[in-house]
Amino acid sequence: MKTPAPDQRLGVWLFGALGGLATTLVVGARAIARGKAGTQGMLTATPLLDGVPLAAVASMVFGGHEVRRGDWASSAAEIQQANGTIPWPLLQALRAELKRASKEVQRGVLPNAGRMIQALAERAVDRRPLRAQVEQVQADLRSFQRRHRLQRVVCVNLTSTEPELRRSPAHRTLAAFEAALDRNHTAAVRPSAIYAYAAATLGMPLVHFTPNNGPLLPAIREAFAASSTPFCGCDGKTGETLVKSALAPMFKYRNLRVLTWQGYNILGDRDGRVLADSENKRAKVASKDGLLPQILGYPLHTHVGIDYVPSLHDMKTAWDFIHFEGFLGHRMAMQFIWQGCDAILAAPVVLDLVRLTDLAARNGEAGPLRHLACFFKRPIDVPEHDLHLQWHLLTDYLDRQRRSKR
Amino acid sequence: MKTPAPDQRLGVWLFGALGGLATTLVVGARAIARGKAGTQGMLTATPLLDGVPLAAVASMVFGGHEVRRGDWASSAAEIQQANGTIPWPLLQALRAELKRASKEVQRGVLPNAGRMIQALAERAVDRRPLRAQVEQVQADLRSFQRRHRLQRVVCVNLTSTEPELRRSPAHRTLAAFEAALDRNHTAAVRPSAIYAYAAATLGMPLVHFTPNNGPLLPAIREAFAASSTPFCGCDGKTGETLVKSALAPMFKYRNLRVLTWQGYNILGDRDGRVLADSENKRAKVASKDGLLPQILGYPLHTHVGIDYVPSLHDMKTAWDFIHFEGFLGHRMAMQFIWQGCDAILAAPVVLDLVRLTDLAARNGEAGPLRHLACFFKRPIDVPEHDLHLQWHLLTDYLDRQRRSKR
Amino acid sequence: MKTPAPDQRLGVWLFGALGGLATTLVVGARAIARGKAGTQGMLTATPLLDGVPLAAVASMVFGGHEVRRGDWASSAAEIQQANGTIPWPLLQALRAELKRASKEVQRGVLPNAGRMIQALAERAVDRRPLRAQVEQVQADLRSFQRRHRLQRVVCVNLTSTEPELRRSPAHRTLAAFEAALDRNHTAAVRPSAIYAYAAATLGMPLVHFTPNNGPLLPAIREAFAASSTPFCGCDGKTGETLVKSALAPMFKYRNLRVLTWQGYNILGDRDGRVLADSENKRAKVASKDGLLPQILGYPLHTHVGIDYVPSLHDMKTAWDFIHFEGFLGHRMAMQFIWQGCDAILAAPVVLDLVRLTDLAARNGEAGPLRHLACFFKRPIDVPEHDLHLQWHLLTDYLDRQRRSKR
Amino acid sequence: MKTPAPDQRLGVWLFGALGGLATTLVVGARAIARGKAGTQGMLTATPLLDGVPLAAVASMVFGGHEVRRGDWASSAAEIQQANGTIPWPLLQALRAELKRASKEVQRGVLPNAGRMIQALAERAVDRRPLRAQVEQVQADLRSFQRRHRLQRVVCVNLTSTEPELRRSPAHRTLAAFEAALDRNHTAAVRPSAIYAYAAATLGMPLVHFTPNNGPLLPAIREAFAASSTPFCGCDGKTGETLVKSALAPMFKYRNLRVLTWQGYNILGDRDGRVLADSENKRAKVASKDGLLPQILGYPLHTHVGIDYVPSLHDMKTAWDFIHFEGFLGHRMAMQFIWQGCDAILAAPVVLDLVRLTDLAARNGEAGPLRHLACFFKRPIDVPEHDLHLQWHLLTDYLDRQRRSKR
Repeated sequence: MKTPAPDQRLGVWLFGALGGLATTLVVGARAIARGKAGTQGMLTATPLLDGVPLAAVASMVFGGHEVRRGDWASSAAEIQQANGTIPWPLLQALRAELKRASKEVQRGVLPNAGRMIQALAERAVDRRPLRAQVEQVQADLRSFQRRHRLQRVVCVNLTSTEPELRRSPAHRTLAAFEAALDRNHTAAVRPSAIYAYAAATLGMPLVHFTPNNGPLLPAIREAFAASSTPFCGCDGKTGETLVKSALAPMFKYRNLRVLTWQGYNILGDRDGRVLADSENKRAKVASKDGLLPQILGYPLHTHVGIDYVPSLHDMKTAWDFIHFEGFLGHRMAMQFIWQGCDAILAAPVVLDLVRLTDLAARNGEAGPLRHLACFFKRPIDVPEHDLHLQWHLLTDYLDRQRRSKR
Repeated sequence: MKTPAPDQRLGVWLFGALGGLATTLVVGARAIARGKAGTQGMLTATPLLDGVPLAAVASMVFGGHEVRRGDWASSAAEIQQANGTIPWPLLQALRAELKRASKEVQRGVLPNAGRMIQALAERAVDRRPLRAQVEQVQADLRSFQRRHRLQRVVCVNLTSTEPELRRSPAHRTLAAFEAALDRNHTAAVRPSAIYAYAAATLGMPLVHFTPNNGPLLPAIREAFAASSTPFCGCDGKTGETLVKSALAPMFKYRNLRVLTWQGYNILGDRDGRVLADSENKRAKVASKDGLLPQILGYPLHTHVGIDYVPSLHDMKTAWDFIHFEGFLGHRMAMQFIWQGCDAILAAPVVLDLVRLTDLAARNGEAGPLRHLACFFKRPIDVPEHDLHLQWHLLTDYLDRQRRSKR
Repeated sequence: MKTPAPDQRLGVWLFGALGGLATTLVVGARAIARGKAGTQGMLTATPLLDGVPLAAVASMVFGGHEVRRGDWASSAAEIQQANGTIPWPLLQALRAELKRASKEVQRGVLPNAGRMIQALAERAVDRRPLRAQVEQVQADLRSFQRRHRLQRVVCVNLTSTEPELRRSPAHRTLAAFEAALDRNHTAAVRPSAIYAYAAATLGMPLVHFTPNNGPLLPAIREAFAASSTPFCGCDGKTGETLVKSALAPMFKYRNLRVLTWQGYNILGDRDGRVLADSENKRAKVASKDGLLPQILGYPLHTHVGIDYVPSLHDMKTAWDFIHFEGFLGHRMAMQFIWQGCDAILAAPVVLDLVRLTDLAARNGEAGPLRHLACFFKRPIDVPEHDLHLQWHLLTDYLDRQRRSKR
Repeated sequence: MKTPAPDQRLGVWLFGALGGLATTLVVGARAIARGKAGTQGMLTATPLLDGVPLAAVASMVFGGHEVRRGDWASSAAEIQQANGTIPWPLLQALRAELKRASKEVQRGVLPNAGRMIQALAERAVDRRPLRAQVEQVQADLRSFQRRHRLQRVVCVNLTSTEPELRRSPAHRTLAAFEAALDRNHTAAVRPSAIYAYAAATLGMPLVHFTPNNGPLLPAIREAFAASSTPFCGCDGKTGETLVKSALAPMFKYRNLRVLTWQGYNILGDRDGRVLADSENKRAKVASKDGLLPQILGYPLHTHVGIDYVPSLHDMKTAWDFIHFEGFLGHRMAMQFIWQGCDAILAAPVVLDLVRLTDLAARNGEAGPLRHLACFFKRPIDVPEHDLHLQWHLLTDYLDRQRRSKR
């Protein structure tokens, strides 16, 4: 099958539009579009993708939902101040444009979002029944698409880490979920579920970049299937976990028995603050901790700590201590220290995912995009965590794309 | 083709027989044979090799050449004292056996070995003409084989790192090399060349585990071809370089531009002392330093330091600092610290290589064994350094082995 | 005043006699006495103490209380196996002597010890009323002293970290405390309080090496005062906290503003297991966390993590991340990694403290020994945490000792 | 003696005026003067100095010599770009002022500066005889003082690390040195010697912040003595060596035997480039390496590596590995990683030194200022390297200052 070259603009709708990651992404995309920044960090900008028809970064039009006040210009200025990752001259050059574009940021929803996230809200919370909130989200999306005359809109979930949503009968089928919405059963949803449901019902593909389990409910998956819409997720793999999944296979190749893999993450920012709450942290840690026994093939002692260190802002630092046993039972150790800016690492990955998800949609693919597993801490429907085996899922897919084009 | 199960004993001849690595290997093999140690560190002891007919560790008979005095019992005691890697009770249990087995350790040769290595020699140096030295080595090998009634002997080069041998016309063909031996042209050889030549002419496979370029000379390769004998090498990949080759692909997968990869190795022991000499170090560093541009696909600033720290003995410690650039040109860093005992890491890999090289010989394979690339810092005839791609060379080979057996 | 040279043997009574620290101490002291080990780690073995009349290590006679089964020989064998810190030949040489000496280890008490510590008990717990337990402890101490004809016995508290004892009116005066003992008010005590009370009433000096607050109660201090007995504590400073107290002053000297000092400790062993319990951990963390604001003179973000990593046994590893602000508000970082064996670090310090406390007792000093502050995480009655200022308290004291002798 | 409050402006003359450190210093001082930056990093801005009459930072007038082209505004912009340490808004606010002030930057001298430094020169080199060059430097200094009507000028040596100047008879006395100048004996000088001589002869105090031995020659010291002028040096202690001198005493306090202290420094920038040259590196390493045996009191294995890593610019990173032996001969390790910006660390120290040296001059002190030892890697006439003992030299001096004022 041949995928037509995407000659029109691509809508990109960000749930959590004014967070550090979303802002960095919008600033970066516009900087690239205007030739003021390179494409480091974007796999889709490398020769690996040659011959694969992807939407141009310059063609992207941004909008989104947000529960805090502000706009992209002020959020970018805040990032500049805290992290220095957005160069001052770039900020100056884009300020007016960012301010203007921010009129596409609409008020988000907060049903059952949990204490920590609710505390972040700065706009008046929408307290209407769930159905009204869902319809508002859908209306915002349709309006964005219509006003910009967009043929395609890809949605991206970048909201804060929610407490895990306990599975209930309301999640089993789409009908049950819609019934729950109708009877305003708030405990059955989180914001991430509402957003994913809205995207699915509108046939808009979703990149689910957070660990929230809302979009993974069977009911929501049924909605994506019903509208033949692709989605991918979950929880972007960009730092400590990325390193883990690249490194753990080495121990397997050498039959070095890993006894302990102890990891500590420290970070500041809203992310760090939200994760400091044990309820929200639990979802994240689960996402970061499962991969080692899968890759290595045996149980081992693991730990993933996440602590809030305000002075670091978004400059995440992680220390991992790996204790392993070799010949004659001798014990040795490896340690690594990762010092990366989360938003800087994640933003280009999100752009990659938007482009690849859009490609899949144009190809007529639906459901979970398994070939994008290498980008996620908990890839949907892919049990494999070995980064290198995940990588082959992607390269095999791209090979098929190129072959189908000819 | 079907490889018969090897039901006889396997001769294993170690050039550099009393070094820390060779001693650890012999102690470990005997400990495994007697049920006194596990097989951690040996890939060939994992289910991956199920159905592939390998020689049993217990079937191995050891001998070797050495230029220092001593025996395996005293060398093992020295290791126990310095590193603690050989447990005291194991040493007690094996002492008598090790002492007895040491009568198979013959005096090694030292032609043109370089200042540092010559200084290590404790036995009277063989000062006869090269031809006589070659014949002595061959005679030692044949005598070992005969006395133990061994059908197969695998040779392993574990000697100290030599200064690089400058290529000369004498290396171009087997005939030229033999002429050089005949006219006693010492500058054309190093011990590693003599040993490899002896093995090749006797049709004994060679595992070349050091960075020495002696065995890689075209003349020597021609000798292996002439006797239809397989060999593999060079320079075992067991520590910092192993990590590099596992980790560097991650940066490629994410289009994170590595600006600098700075590595420092500190170690004690004879190895550290020999490498402290800049002549010998050069060969080693070349072997450790080339892989990054190949894996990443672009030039970058790299450095590999090796310094002698007597107090560490064989407990090698490495610190690597990786500076990389991501989205918006932002610079981030990763560091790792590797604390491993070189002999403990290398010994099981040598056992793996002996078994896999023996398998290849039984299969009738000849020349460089490309599928063993993942075990070497500078794999012969394999330009690929990405550990994961090298891994697939091995697993594909093993799949073919298993298929051919049915 | 002139302190007479101590020509008799010195009794050393260890509460927690078979733990890793106590066992290492006894093995080490006997090894030193028999010329089989050096005195590294013991400050009192350096020229700094020249001219100060200390008890000889060889003159020490050991006994103690313990709630687990075993003896010093089996405990030392266990340490050899797990940590390798006690060399095998030394173990062999001392085995018989250790076994013999272990008859001085008596059953300890466990009143209100908390869930984690109670779970460690292997001997039948003494369930008699508190008064009977106290009298038993006192009888054991007196019997030890009498049988060995010891003029002086120094007690050392090396028991596991207990949950903090909430202060109550029963702790305010010695009379109130004794009344509580009489009416068997178990909630008012912990083992550490019973042990300290017994030592105080017998006029035996106490080295309080753990964070337990039992010995610090006003009632117990009153008991020490009543018997004119010196004591010192609390919580030996031997690892991460030692480094902190040595390093923090540097930031003060340079007016570099420390924003964050984040520390993570991982260790195995009984210590690690007990500290894994949040109740017990709290007491320890309080002890490790308070010093930075005191040294630096301002509040800052600090964290002390302690996690249980079984594979490490007693090989404690700590990672500290220090984030600080310099000129023009620029932020920089320092990290350190500490890899030490807790018992190996602590045992010589305990020997130092025993000798210095015995010296003080011979000098007629009573109450808290402030000049020993540099050895403790929470020095009694010394608010200063700067290691270097604490060091001067000690050197000034030693100078006075030497002057008084002349 | 009472030091009058310095109510006039203080001239500060920087040899190496446009380097990263000098530029950061000038920018910082002006930012502080205009209330646009805090005083972090300046010890003299803390309450420790209360009651000690120091020149106000705002009162400082800057000038200097330089061999490269440019001005403080462009140099600051370059630092902003490379390191981000000078905030963009600050750069904007100060640009005009910096440009204007740069007319006080005069062409520097380069006699016998060595290959690496000569290569940095961008202005036409002054090739006149040495005497003419000396007179030029003196004339520049006098002119600066006269035009700004400055009562006091403090000179600061911030030039690049020169190859060590071999001692010769020409250095033994002031007369011999002046004779060498007169007969244009270039091999007897380096730029650092010329600058120091000029300052000394004009009675201007000198802060010698680099490892260059030019200013330490007996002849130059005689010149300072002749003019009763104070000076201090040498080689500012701001990073890895500072940590060493703070940490090493800890090992002494605990009788932990340091076997190895291995340090690696990586940095970019002109500093890194100059130090990459082995000739220049030697002087620096000598300065960084001597302190450990002095502090610890015994010889040990040490190493100080300095390597050039362009991508780091001025963000120096150091890794130190410390191997030490404790009780029962057990070996343990500590590592630290220092990530600091050299100019940011050094600039406030230079401001401190300028203020304290000016104070000493106003006090009538002459010769080497021993109480400033804590600021230097190789303090002149102070053999003590223990940072804490050096600290007491300073605090005792300040106490005397305060007492004398009353």
